[in-house]
Order: sequence, then structure tokens, then C-alpha cells
Amino acid sequence: MPAQPSHNAPRPGSGPALRADARENRERILRAAREAYALHGIDVPISAIARRAGVGVAILYRRFPSRGLLITEAFAEQLAECAGVLDEALEDPDPWRGFCTVFRKVCAMQAADRGFTHAFLSRFPGETAYAGERDRAEEGLALLVRRAQKAGALRPDFDISDVVLVLLANSGVVNGTGPEAAAASRRLVGYLLESFRATPCVRPLPPPAGLELDRLHQAPG
Amino acid sequence: MPAQPSHNAPRPGSGPALRADARENRERILRAAREAYALHGIDVPISAIARRAGVGVAILYRRFPSRGLLITEAFAEQLAECAGVLDEALEDPDPWRGFCTVFRKVCAMQAADRGFTHAFLSRFPGETAYAGERDRAEEGLALLVRRAQKAGALRPDFDISDVVLVLLANSGVVNGTGPEAAAASRRLVGYLLESFRATPCVRPLPPPAGLELDRLHQAPG
Repeated sequence: MPAQPSHNAPRPGSGPALRADARENRERILRAAREAYALHGIDVPISAIARRAGVGVAILYRRFPSRGLLITEAFAEQLAECAGVLDEALEDPDPWRGFCTVFRKVCAMQAADRGFTHAFLSRFPGETAYAGERDRAEEGLALLVRRAQKAGALRPDFDISDVVLVLLANSGVVNGTGPEAAAASRRLVGYLLESFRATPCVRPLPPPAGLELDRLHQAPG
Repeated sequence: MPAQPSHNAPRPGSGPALRADARENRERILRAAREAYALHGIDVPISAIARRAGVGVAILYRRFPSRGLLITEAFAEQLAECAGVLDEALEDPDPWRGFCTVFRKVCAMQAADRGFTHAFLSRFPGETAYAGERDRAEEGLALLVRRAQKAGALRPDFDISDVVLVLLANSGVVNGTGPEAAAASRRLVGYLLESFRATPCVRPLPPPAGLELDRLHQAPG
């Protein structure tokens, strides 16, 4: 745990020094939050994050007045990474390879960081930072699915809500395993992609659950 | 919440009446526990179960001295049902149908009762009541898998640890959805069974995660 620097308390009128302190604290808090979320999920108490960051709870609350805000900012980088994965996949000249890549990469991210999944699937009232990302992700995914189906590579009865099914199934595997999480996740995604492929061997499926991506964000993580 | 009967407190020396009270309390506690676990998972506090049962916490602890014991007894019936499903499947003359039935039925049980999954996958130190059931389940499943593979219906690279993968994936879907849990679970199981089928279209998979059924019971639910 990093030592708490002696100049940690805000000094009225110290101008640039205060701003540098604030920036430093902010970074330290976000780093601690990411570590704690990755280890314990996003239900970890604020006080534990403050302790890990080596700052007081009051300072943490001054920088991040709500829990949702802290979570949103802690995962901003990973959300951007997800968006990048989706953009890249849509540019892949092979629609099926693009489709598979998204699932493989996003599920590997889930496996590497349990906190991220939880944050991505949870809804934080009053926080809208994720909403725009989600809308964009939803549009991109729909396009990815249509493209792969049009190419005859993805089964025609694959439903956009099945994307949510994959993410939830993968989170169950990741949360229920320890060091084997990454291997178990790869195996699960391998099986699911097998069943998504359009082949002469496909058989009918039970109907889609009709989960809206948006509806699902209300679910307990 | 059921009203607390006036004859609830044990009366010293009341003999058969006391035993009847004890039996009644026991049943009431087990019913309340099952309801609470189904709604909130097995982390629900003992005090909440006592309240729901309309008995004092002291009486609950007298009947069930440990949390693990309460959980074990609350789910005894469902564990027996699981064992029955497996036995029936092994008697099915069609090995593939038997194989599929087990997954469909056990996953539907998971979808109907979140507490059961949690209990089944958790380990309770000092409680061994589940251990025998698990050993039996493990043997039965191994037989089921070998039989379906020998019949050429199940892909030869299906690994016994993939059973655990299915249960964990299904628990992720069930925990992450609300009223759609049953439909979402059916859809997931449909996809997975599609990918387990031995067809001329199968492609290689990432290697199994090598999860021992037993190893997994240590995972956080």
C-alpha cells in the first residue's frame, strides 16, 4: 500500500500545489478502485478503496461524490477498449472473423477483470456516462450480426439478445472459477461460437429470451 | 409472513407437545429458508430466515446449529431430484437424449431457484452431507458422457469438466436476468447442446479448462 504523502491535506490558497495534489490523489484513487474492483467486484466498500489508495474517505468523496461516478471513471479506459474492439471487428473484411473476434476479446476482458463485467452490466442511477457507450455498442453489435448473417456465416436465428446471453454466461464462468477463469472462458466461448456458426448441421433452437441489452442493465450483477 | 403461534416457546416437561412444536418449527424454518434462498441466494442472514419463519433466532440455532446444516437440509429434496434425473437419464435407451435431458432439467432447476445453484456449488466446511451426493453425481455424469460418446452422438472432445462449465454459465444467465431467467436458460442450454453434438461440421475447440467438479466447489458462488 502506498504511503500517504505528508502534503496530502488541502492547504487553502496554495494554488498550483493544491491542483497537483488533487490530480495525484485522483489517479491514486482510480488505480486503487480498479485493483479493488478487479479483485472483489464493485461491491467493495468505499472505505476499502480509500485505504488502498492511502487517502482519507473524505478526500475520496470530494473527488468522486458518488459511487457510480467512481466506477464510471475507473473503467473509462476499458470501455474505450471495448469500443475499439467493435470498430476493428466491423472493419474486418471477413464478417465471421470479425464477429468471433468481438466475443473472444470482450469475454477475455471479462475473464481478466471481474469488476469490469459487473460495472458494464450494472445501472447506476444518476450516472449517464455509460449510456452513450452502450447505445453505440448496441448499434455496432447489431451491424456485426447482420453482416455475418448476410454472409451466410452466422445462423439466421441468432438474435441480438444472444449477445447478452454470452456475456452473462461468461460472467458466471468467470465468477465461479479461480485461476482457471481465462481457460474456462475460452472454452465456453469456443463452444458458443461453434453453435452460432451457420452449417448444414444446425438444428432449431428454443426461442430467444428477448432480453433487451438495455433491459438487462437493470439486473443485479 | 406467517403469524407466530402462541405455543411457540418450548415448555419444559411438556413431552410430546414439545416434540410436536419442535417438528413444526423445523418445517417452518426449512420452508422459510427455501423461500429466502430462492429469492436472495444463500447469503441471506439467519435472522431474516428466523423472521420469515416467525421463530426466534435462538430457536433456529437450536434446530440448526450451523448455517451449512440449514442449507443442506433445506435443499435435500432438490438434491434427491437431481439424483433422480441422472438415474432416469442413465436408463434412457437413447444415450444422446439422456445426456440432453440431464442438462435441460438441471439447468431448469437452477433457473427456478437461484439458492439451489449457490448451495450446490458451495462448500461448507464441516458439512459432509453433500459430499456423498456429489461423488455419486460425478460418477453418474462420467458414465452418461462415455455412453453418449460411445454412441457417436457426443463430440469426442467433450470433457467431463465441461459439465461444470455449463452449470456455471447457466448460473450467470440466471443470476443476471429477472423474469426472463427460464427462457434465457433454455436458449443457452439449446445453444450449448448444439455445440456438444457430434456432427460432420464440428471444428476443434480451445482445450478444456480442466476444472475438477470437486475443485469447483471451492469457488465463490
